[in-house]
Amino acid sequence: MSAEELLAERLNYYRERHVNYLTSIIERKAPAENLRAAMAYAVLLGGKRVRPFLVYATGSMLGADESVLDAPAAAIECIHAYSLVHDDLPAMDDDALRRGKNTCHIEFDEATAILAGDALQSLAFELLSQPMAEINAQQQLAMIATLANASGLNGMCGGQALDIAATGITIEEDALAQIHELKTGALLRAAIRLGALSAQGALNAEGALSEKRALSAGGALSETRALSEKRALSANVINEQTLKALDNFADTIGLAFQVKDDILDVTGTTQALGKLQGADAALAKSTYPALLGLAGSQELLRQLHQKALHALSLIPYNTVVLEQFTEYLVTRDR
Amino acid sequence: MSAEELLAERLNYYRERHVNYLTSIIERKAPAENLRAAMAYAVLLGGKRVRPFLVYATGSMLGADESVLDAPAAAIECIHAYSLVHDDLPAMDDDALRRGKNTCHIEFDEATAILAGDALQSLAFELLSQPMAEINAQQQLAMIATLANASGLNGMCGGQALDIAATGITIEEDALAQIHELKTGALLRAAIRLGALSAQGALNAEGALSEKRALSAGGALSETRALSEKRALSANVINEQTLKALDNFADTIGLAFQVKDDILDVTGTTQALGKLQGADAALAKSTYPALLGLAGSQELLRQLHQKALHALSLIPYNTVVLEQFTEYLVTRDR
Repeated sequence: MSAEELLAERLNYYRERHVNYLTSIIERKAPAENLRAAMAYAVLLGGKRVRPFLVYATGSMLGADESVLDAPAAAIECIHAYSLVHDDLPAMDDDALRRGKNTCHIEFDEATAILAGDALQSLAFELLSQPMAEINAQQQLAMIATLANASGLNGMCGGQALDIAATGITIEEDALAQIHELKTGALLRAAIRLGALSAQGALNAEGALSEKRALSAGGALSETRALSEKRALSANVINEQTLKALDNFADTIGLAFQVKDDILDVTGTTQALGKLQGADAALAKSTYPALLGLAGSQELLRQLHQKALHALSLIPYNTVVLEQFTEYLVTRDR
Repeated sequence: MSAEELLAERLNYYRERHVNYLTSIIERKAPAENLRAAMAYAVLLGGKRVRPFLVYATGSMLGADESVLDAPAAAIECIHAYSLVHDDLPAMDDDALRRGKNTCHIEFDEATAILAGDALQSLAFELLSQPMAEINAQQQLAMIATLANASGLNGMCGGQALDIAATGITIEEDALAQIHELKTGALLRAAIRLGALSAQGALNAEGALSEKRALSAGGALSETRALSEKRALSANVINEQTLKALDNFADTIGLAFQVKDDILDVTGTTQALGKLQGADAALAKSTYPALLGLAGSQELLRQLHQKALHALSLIPYNTVVLEQFTEYLVTRDR
């Protein structure tokens, strides 16, 4: 299989796994059926599933079991989906079309869309806080902290607020980079961190089970100690250099993702994008093409691509899927 | 001090402690100053602070240190505050006045109010997921799960959706009770549970510290065992009967709270309420007075009061503060 084919296979495989998992969660009966339907509409219909992919790809690369990655992947997609629902509201971007379909407040109504977004955010934290037998509780708390931080005032919501404030005025490249770092970058970085935290927090199931058995049988303490040591040895230690390189990679592709989105808003077609081409320009939003020109934006994208590949080259795991994903990010047409 | 004076003293003391804690969090510098200001406006200006009070009062009654209760109390207030901001939006209840002040979208704008609500929800989970030295990580995860569940589709958001759906139509008493159980009750129950979980999860600081010291010094395993046993003995075990009685108490005061609110919407004054008297009736909302009449609602409130006191009578701790609080809930004029 070529690297390109491998990526296509992984993208499909993880997307399908993720959507099946999300569906099993979101189809559970609830008292407010209309709200549940709006949440399902928002989170299940289409989308590239970039964030879940990054959770699965990073976690798998570092040795996590896929079953450990389902909840973090679904949680981050719930956050992303809720942000799209709220961003599309009349008081925000006032978009009627998303992924070629009615936005949530058009399909349902504004009040329901606001509540669906709110409840999707709660669902994200519900998913991450459910008992996970295979994950160390401290690492699970770190995942929740990571996602909450990336979502709020110092992450996605803060970025969206800065973006709104910058609408209709000219801002510097640094300010634009900060907006995107918060608005889009924070969540992409969180996706990669959730993958890494899942891999780090994964307990050796066999070791954990034996230890529990020994303890509940009132086993000799020496036996418990031996098992604890085995467990510590089997704990997945991911070194600082790898974590740092992953953060750099995340920051770089986060910005690349946004630069590419801005370019597509100028060069793409409404049909391919599934949303109105030129929507940003029509809203007088600050964009890279507006700031650097189209050629300047394409040059920036090329540099970010190289920087991302460099970050990956410092990671002593098999990074081929993430490399190909970066390629896809910067060359996609929608 | 009479029981009444004791309650007044505790209400003031916890409110002040809570507001100081929240202020220290919400005044941290952030890139999006306007959004931060909107969050602070929403969460700091006034309010009865019923939910934080319940966290502190329940946790303290069961033996938790107040410092352990600060984050859970603040987290639940962030959820409550965000729900008010979103409920007040033009697409929802369209309220311009709250606690005698401009609602958030009037003071700022709609987009900022939506984002402030979103970021307050994230902040709640950030607060609950931060490292807490004195709390067992599993209990901390249980707190997060409790709050997330109470906030989302099967809690507050679901209740709000059902409430909107019931506007302008006549519904049965059971359906009205379900709306309130979800819309208001779920979060009040969560407040009491967070208090209980904080008390249950509180580690004996001295024991935990000694154990860590013994381990890091490579201390004999027998010493570690002795310390672990001491720690297990000092763990705060709260029996099932108490937890069940607390849940019953929570459900009962949750409903009583709403029945009283509905009564006040008919009998209160705009000045005392800090919001427009008759607002529910004007919106053709389903209320207890509309369903049972004023006298019938007052009789229901009396029954709920007795039921709440009965639940407390089954709890083998000093429940005087919670008793007085129940009295206050059903007799308040705003």
